[in-house]
Amino acid sequence: MKLTILGSSSALPTSARNPSAHVLNVHERLFLIDCGEGTQMQMRRFRIRFGKINHIFISHIHGDHVFGLYGLISTFSLMGRQIPLHIYAPANYEKMFISHLNDFDIYPEFDIVFQPLEGKKIQTVLEDKHLTVKAFPLRHRIPSFGFLFREKEELRKIVREMIVKHNIPVSKIPGIKKGEDFVKDDGTVIRNEDLTIPPPKPRTYAYCSDTSYFSRLPSYLKEVDVLYHEATFGDDHAGLAPVTGHSTASEAARVAVAAGVKTLLIGHFSSRYKDAGVLLEQARKIFPETYIAEEGVSYNI
Amino acid sequence: MKLTILGSSSALPTSARNPSAHVLNVHERLFLIDCGEGTQMQMRRFRIRFGKINHIFISHIHGDHVFGLYGLISTFSLMGRQIPLHIYAPANYEKMFISHLNDFDIYPEFDIVFQPLEGKKIQTVLEDKHLTVKAFPLRHRIPSFGFLFREKEELRKIVREMIVKHNIPVSKIPGIKKGEDFVKDDGTVIRNEDLTIPPPKPRTYAYCSDTSYFSRLPSYLKEVDVLYHEATFGDDHAGLAPVTGHSTASEAARVAVAAGVKTLLIGHFSSRYKDAGVLLEQARKIFPETYIAEEGVSYNI
Repeated sequence: MKLTILGSSSALPTSARNPSAHVLNVHERLFLIDCGEGTQMQMRRFRIRFGKINHIFISHIHGDHVFGLYGLISTFSLMGRQIPLHIYAPANYEKMFISHLNDFDIYPEFDIVFQPLEGKKIQTVLEDKHLTVKAFPLRHRIPSFGFLFREKEELRKIVREMIVKHNIPVSKIPGIKKGEDFVKDDGTVIRNEDLTIPPPKPRTYAYCSDTSYFSRLPSYLKEVDVLYHEATFGDDHAGLAPVTGHSTASEAARVAVAAGVKTLLIGHFSSRYKDAGVLLEQARKIFPETYIAEEGVSYNI
Repeated sequence: MKLTILGSSSALPTSARNPSAHVLNVHERLFLIDCGEGTQMQMRRFRIRFGKINHIFISHIHGDHVFGLYGLISTFSLMGRQIPLHIYAPANYEKMFISHLNDFDIYPEFDIVFQPLEGKKIQTVLEDKHLTVKAFPLRHRIPSFGFLFREKEELRKIVREMIVKHNIPVSKIPGIKKGEDFVKDDGTVIRNEDLTIPPPKPRTYAYCSDTSYFSRLPSYLKEVDVLYHEATFGDDHAGLAPVTGHSTASEAARVAVAAGVKTLLIGHFSSRYKDAGVLLEQARKIFPETYIAEEGVSYNI
């Protein structure tokens, strides 16, 4: 898994930070998470391949998370895209979205498969052989969802020398990869752990923006390697966070501690903080493994 | 007058060119012409002052000319703007536009004064003491308008030494600035041209995007100093121009010749032209004073 930050500002972009957009690369398939204004230009800038994006996840229908979607769809269309595009977004968006495309004279030739997000529970919204994606409710001024991307456990890897040594027939290999022992013709049992090595641990990435702090949030984030959590405010404006449906850097860090994640990335900083270092410092006091989501930087998970 | 190019791509932005947006500075008042995706980020990049924009002109409702408007209005709102914003756009846009703002949860506190563009004739859409702005119909796939910004003729400038020499009373000065002669108490007539110097010639800027070539277009562009004209295609794709509602660089140049403008800027190049120099060369064969509209560059008119 590789995460690339395309935009990390809050609603008011700055000269250094574009509105929200993340790209997650899982086995060379790209998942776009939020799509603020200018996302397609950031994709060109950071050499993200347009043709590899088949799934777009929209956390909520505020402009700084969705204004870039129309231009991107127009571009897909002009590039001659044929394969379907899956969009996961709050349920009330589908009707608006179709109407907006018509208003802007955009009639894509490819199918857009809209998957509505709703409800108060965490739920699986995408599952294939490599990956499960879950959506969970956040607490914002309008319906808003976080996303959890978890690789599936791969099969065990068979040690090539052992195939030769024990003369293992091809027909037995799939079973061995799944954990079976190998029984020779003479009845000798070769234990699976002597034939295979375990697969790499599945990686998990979670995206939480925009949300105010609520006590159930960490329960959605178990065994997460990298958590991105919004940190709109510092402790100096802690009172504004619940009122506006946002979090402070300290609250983001408390979520990271409670969930037991490995690494915390913070972003979506209010433009009033010219130097995000202040927010980083406040978060690190609570959760030392905190980093600032920097535009154009890729993080291996 | 000073023109700054914020975006000069066609519908498919490239890594070097953003979608359409121009800023015209007339006596330190800024007029935004088209507002493609990313315009507000380009404004920050090129230090255009948000608070000085009170009038936005939208040529037509295709995304590459309008997707940036929503983010810009959201930003105006977050910056606490109070003064009214005037938007000039094709008539069918007003209803859509209001509905889009609501869909995106944007409820500005400042007034948005929408001025519908319609009809088949050139017409004055804004007039104040310094400037007249006219809109004229273009020929595109949907209703589309060009804009003509013309400074008003200033009063003649009185030569300070002459006031002293002829002992001209203050009450006579406004009349002299308008061209009157000065009659002394003894009946001597001092001719106006001996008292004043003429004002600078009024400057004119015209914006034409998107349009295919039509013979009436040059008649809208008389006495234009700088004409921006789209040049989506080169001669190699001349057949595509009328079909898609666009122009070739050669057609843009022919409009410049027929209208007798001083300088032609071309932009809105199809992304198929990696080097716009080819288009420049084709235009210059017909109209030598052609230049490429370069992002972030300002042109004094």
